[in-house]
Amino acid sequence: MIKAGIIGSTGYAGAELVRLLLNHREAEIVWYGSRSYVDQQYAGIYGNFFDLVNSRCLDDDMESLAERADVIFTATPQGFCSSKISENLLKKTRVIDLSADYRIKDPERYEQWYGIHHPTPEFLGEAVYGLPELKRAAVAGARLVANPGCFPTCSLLAIMPMMKSSFIDRQSVIIDAKSGVTGAGRGAKVQNLYCEVNETVKAYGVTVHRHTPEIEDYLSEAAGEAVTVQFTPHLVPMNRGILVTAYANLTADVSDEEVRSLYEKAYEDEAFVRVLPEGRVPETRWVRGSNYADVNFMIDHRTRRIIMMGAIDNIGKGAAGQAVQNMNIMFGLDEREGLMTVPMSV
Amino acid sequence: MIKAGIIGSTGYAGAELVRLLLNHREAEIVWYGSRSYVDQQYAGIYGNFFDLVNSRCLDDDMESLAERADVIFTATPQGFCSSKISENLLKKTRVIDLSADYRIKDPERYEQWYGIHHPTPEFLGEAVYGLPELKRAAVAGARLVANPGCFPTCSLLAIMPMMKSSFIDRQSVIIDAKSGVTGAGRGAKVQNLYCEVNETVKAYGVTVHRHTPEIEDYLSEAAGEAVTVQFTPHLVPMNRGILVTAYANLTADVSDEEVRSLYEKAYEDEAFVRVLPEGRVPETRWVRGSNYADVNFMIDHRTRRIIMMGAIDNIGKGAAGQAVQNMNIMFGLDEREGLMTVPMSV
Amino acid sequence: MIKAGIIGSTGYAGAELVRLLLNHREAEIVWYGSRSYVDQQYAGIYGNFFDLVNSRCLDDDMESLAERADVIFTATPQGFCSSKISENLLKKTRVIDLSADYRIKDPERYEQWYGIHHPTPEFLGEAVYGLPELKRAAVAGARLVANPGCFPTCSLLAIMPMMKSSFIDRQSVIIDAKSGVTGAGRGAKVQNLYCEVNETVKAYGVTVHRHTPEIEDYLSEAAGEAVTVQFTPHLVPMNRGILVTAYANLTADVSDEEVRSLYEKAYEDEAFVRVLPEGRVPETRWVRGSNYADVNFMIDHRTRRIIMMGAIDNIGKGAAGQAVQNMNIMFGLDEREGLMTVPMSV
Amino acid sequence: MIKAGIIGSTGYAGAELVRLLLNHREAEIVWYGSRSYVDQQYAGIYGNFFDLVNSRCLDDDMESLAERADVIFTATPQGFCSSKISENLLKKTRVIDLSADYRIKDPERYEQWYGIHHPTPEFLGEAVYGLPELKRAAVAGARLVANPGCFPTCSLLAIMPMMKSSFIDRQSVIIDAKSGVTGAGRGAKVQNLYCEVNETVKAYGVTVHRHTPEIEDYLSEAAGEAVTVQFTPHLVPMNRGILVTAYANLTADVSDEEVRSLYEKAYEDEAFVRVLPEGRVPETRWVRGSNYADVNFMIDHRTRRIIMMGAIDNIGKGAAGQAVQNMNIMFGLDEREGLMTVPMSV
Repeated sequence: MIKAGIIGSTGYAGAELVRLLLNHREAEIVWYGSRSYVDQQYAGIYGNFFDLVNSRCLDDDMESLAERADVIFTATPQGFCSSKISENLLKKTRVIDLSADYRIKDPERYEQWYGIHHPTPEFLGEAVYGLPELKRAAVAGARLVANPGCFPTCSLLAIMPMMKSSFIDRQSVIIDAKSGVTGAGRGAKVQNLYCEVNETVKAYGVTVHRHTPEIEDYLSEAAGEAVTVQFTPHLVPMNRGILVTAYANLTADVSDEEVRSLYEKAYEDEAFVRVLPEGRVPETRWVRGSNYADVNFMIDHRTRRIIMMGAIDNIGKGAAGQAVQNMNIMFGLDEREGLMTVPMSV
Repeated sequence: MIKAGIIGSTGYAGAELVRLLLNHREAEIVWYGSRSYVDQQYAGIYGNFFDLVNSRCLDDDMESLAERADVIFTATPQGFCSSKISENLLKKTRVIDLSADYRIKDPERYEQWYGIHHPTPEFLGEAVYGLPELKRAAVAGARLVANPGCFPTCSLLAIMPMMKSSFIDRQSVIIDAKSGVTGAGRGAKVQNLYCEVNETVKAYGVTVHRHTPEIEDYLSEAAGEAVTVQFTPHLVPMNRGILVTAYANLTADVSDEEVRSLYEKAYEDEAFVRVLPEGRVPETRWVRGSNYADVNFMIDHRTRRIIMMGAIDNIGKGAAGQAVQNMNIMFGLDEREGLMTVPMSV
Repeated sequence: MIKAGIIGSTGYAGAELVRLLLNHREAEIVWYGSRSYVDQQYAGIYGNFFDLVNSRCLDDDMESLAERADVIFTATPQGFCSSKISENLLKKTRVIDLSADYRIKDPERYEQWYGIHHPTPEFLGEAVYGLPELKRAAVAGARLVANPGCFPTCSLLAIMPMMKSSFIDRQSVIIDAKSGVTGAGRGAKVQNLYCEVNETVKAYGVTVHRHTPEIEDYLSEAAGEAVTVQFTPHLVPMNRGILVTAYANLTADVSDEEVRSLYEKAYEDEAFVRVLPEGRVPETRWVRGSNYADVNFMIDHRTRRIIMMGAIDNIGKGAAGQAVQNMNIMFGLDEREGLMTVPMSV
Repeated sequence: MIKAGIIGSTGYAGAELVRLLLNHREAEIVWYGSRSYVDQQYAGIYGNFFDLVNSRCLDDDMESLAERADVIFTATPQGFCSSKISENLLKKTRVIDLSADYRIKDPERYEQWYGIHHPTPEFLGEAVYGLPELKRAAVAGARLVANPGCFPTCSLLAIMPMMKSSFIDRQSVIIDAKSGVTGAGRGAKVQNLYCEVNETVKAYGVTVHRHTPEIEDYLSEAAGEAVTVQFTPHLVPMNRGILVTAYANLTADVSDEEVRSLYEKAYEDEAFVRVLPEGRVPETRWVRGSNYADVNFMIDHRTRRIIMMGAIDNIGKGAAGQAVQNMNIMFGLDEREGLMTVPMSV
């Protein structure tokens, strides 16, 4: 049994990790970290775990945890994990960081978008960007995994096959994304109160959202050239889900079949990426509670553009699900272990 | 492997059966019945099953199905199952009926509340009311199970321990229930459109709801006397969940501890009934997607009443989950098989 | 023009007061009080007022405000208004208090339920309980009005005609209420975050909710005897609305017509209470954004009980709308001024 | 008093017309048309009108209605109005058509996108496109007004100032829109049931949505050249609201101030278009229930694009509100009459 510790277990991604790991046959949770709720019953905070979890919350002492755990998940704000990582720690345990600390490899770029000086840039080179569909082999050997952001996961999976092709103008990509409210976290803020978010929709972080450089870096890697994207997220009144609608200009008269073939080939061996049948649009409800990413595209021959679409559960494949998938790969398990629950559409 | 057929597989309870059975290690689905969608891809209707179900819908020919299936689930409108049941059919297969056809044992009472003349009253005696917490032994030997209604399941589990005691006036029970919208079914009706149901709450079926006699019959059985209850359901803007708030007059100065002891004893061996800690109220989100029933009570010494509360997922323990639990019992499996997924609170 | 000041103008009831008063032809707002947002543009907090309100928030200095305003609305937490009221203040201005400070006339009872020692009990006698359907004449001459609570408003209007009759056992009343989330206020609390409240329903304040004594006091007044009620509110995922479903035991074989006649007579001259036609249940959407209270009843001859139902908008007739109605009465205006906007059902 | 008739008064736009016209001091409704509910009480269908409307539904006989009404609103499916319009009818009454029948001036283009052969193309020239901010003078003299679509209204108001400038590549416009569910109408369709729409988001009509040619035609008119746009609407779980996020490539190093000046100048005399302050994004809740359109923009100097944003209430400014605004202009009234209710943000 893999012994897993979770720092930040009472946030939404943390609680999803608990839900998934309880369902995992090869892992057990040894540490429910939550600074805000130290000594409180975990099931007293999340009543769904009543009778299932009989542990109290512990603090976020990663040093002690490293002695007990084979793997630590840090579902914490930016800056936390990077302030704790050390060679000594990584000698004792592996770390899957759900924050952005090790996703962007250029520490100046990180500082520019996040406003945080990176305290441990020496680990940026080692840390593996944990999008298995892109970096599976590297994840397998990693001590430190930078679990991707929710918007980047969905955007990259939806756009990647086209970005690797010559069919689109690589600088023309516009990503219009929609997110459920768990993405805003569980902090007590007026702006996330029920009545502030219900029955309305808005854009946020327009031109400045922090997931922009992450998307650009890995699209650039795929393109073999520096790519700039326009990224605009929106907040939608629902608990879970991310939908990406991405636009690019076509450079050639490509047929639907050619593009479909690209997508199918790209994901034919992937357990969690479903290329939908022609004409079907991804919907967030079809992936809710699961680790699936549904992708599809439509070509507009009239405007000579392609619309690339993707849907994930933002705390599933967009956070906790992907983190468990990475754990499975790092420990040589079947990548699907603990993740094959059927999406709950209603 | 148990071969299971589902009649009515495209309704919400039917689709939940599919979701649960796909997760069940000892059963497989051999028939996706749906008269409205015959020959259509099941995953084309419920996109969450894409890549997981590659079958087309079949009609509702129970005779043919009986040749192929070890068990048939009928998730169909009232009157369907009772028109199909025959000795010949029950010799070939077992039936778990999610409709009300065999729950009420007096055919006149059934006709009175449902407005349907019962076509096969001769099976009313044999059919077992499938509330395992009440009838486990009988379910184990049953050929025909009448799967309980959603409101009765929640009401009975919340009230039963008190009804068996001498602490309440048994004729004083008032049940005020709240249901999510899946309970209204998937029929194309104006009254269930998003904009008709969203952002509002109302009572329905006041004084005449069909679950009333079912609740009364089994409370009466527990009480050892004929019991009349007041039952009022309400429609709440959410997909899943039933919450029951039930009131009864106390007949004695009973303490919280005495009552808690009754509840804990009643459910100490039950895998799916969670008696919550003192002071915690059931919430539907804590049981969402699961087969749990959360129950608790509060005594109001000021008014000399007890408030008994319960929460279930109406298409989980209130329909499909309980049906699978019954199947497990009927086939001698661990009652929990396929049902131990953690509730999904957000 | 009546000069109105609002203390607590950035809470949900306060913002509704602003919305209603902007639509009022005889009143103008001279003070947007909000301690948390002093000096900020009011329309920067509530964007719906952009172009309509060009004022900045002021603090809660009631002394200064009393110099400028003909009437002060205090939409503030319990204990605030009662700590500010003085003979000197009431000589300068009138006060409509939306908190509970002056609703309960017995200061010990207030302290018992609210846990606050009443600082100015000498004004309890003078303060008029501002339910116009009950106290219109007194409101007309009042300097200080205790604007009723949302649950009491809806409960009293639904139950009052029966409580004044001899048809029910007056000690048998059970009120099961459902509220939208604006009722929980605009404070930054985890429990009111979108994802904590969405897609779930729960009871709260079971046996101890503070609106209980208020309901009891005015029902007792109507009954001519001390009445005890059971009151249980529930939180429902919607912005606005309160639904009351109240139960009482009948003492006589009363007919539907007799009871209907009671209700129609009770409200025949009331502009804001709509007795619905036979068979129609109140729904919160039908009163949304308005000052209406919809009421109706059903008699269950089988159980010998009556179910009394009411629906209001909790921040309309349940708070700000009723406050404006009281202002209209206090200043001799048409009671309906500013309040005749049609409910917005979707 | 203007006598107004409504064909299609039980749809969501029709019911909003009723709500607005009841609040209008110069108009009265003489005909509640609704083929599906002939002879039924209008307030029996929409309970919010109880005590306010005491009329029964009539059929859709426009000939009879023309004798009685000064203006007819047709809130009907495409093809209805165009099959009824005649010179004779327009001699008796004016018509404001909320369908698409007279918006697109080229009947072949109409047929191509709508799949309907236009029966009365001879009136296409006369019919005025009822976007007052664009065609006020023509509306004033019109007998027949083509009330704009919801997405076009929001898109045109958000984009128009830039399209008239030389700052953007006019062929680069991509419109990503989000709509509430009232936009899908009140027809009894499974796809619009609560549980099919709640807690999910999806694109629809990708590359083929019928509002595309309408947006293009009037942007082309503004641009002085034929413009092609990419338009993708999404369905969001909320009752009301449209949000438009539009992207265009900048052709020059334009400053925020220059663009702001363009927007402010374009709308300085408009009562219903609010150019938001710098840095504030439109949200649908700020315009709910009103005739406002909130617009704003952000320039991304990094990507050399402009993001243009707009928010309206889809059945307000996007349908019924705009129709009343057009009526006011046609009859020489203050354009704001009946439309100055404050948006209801929660």
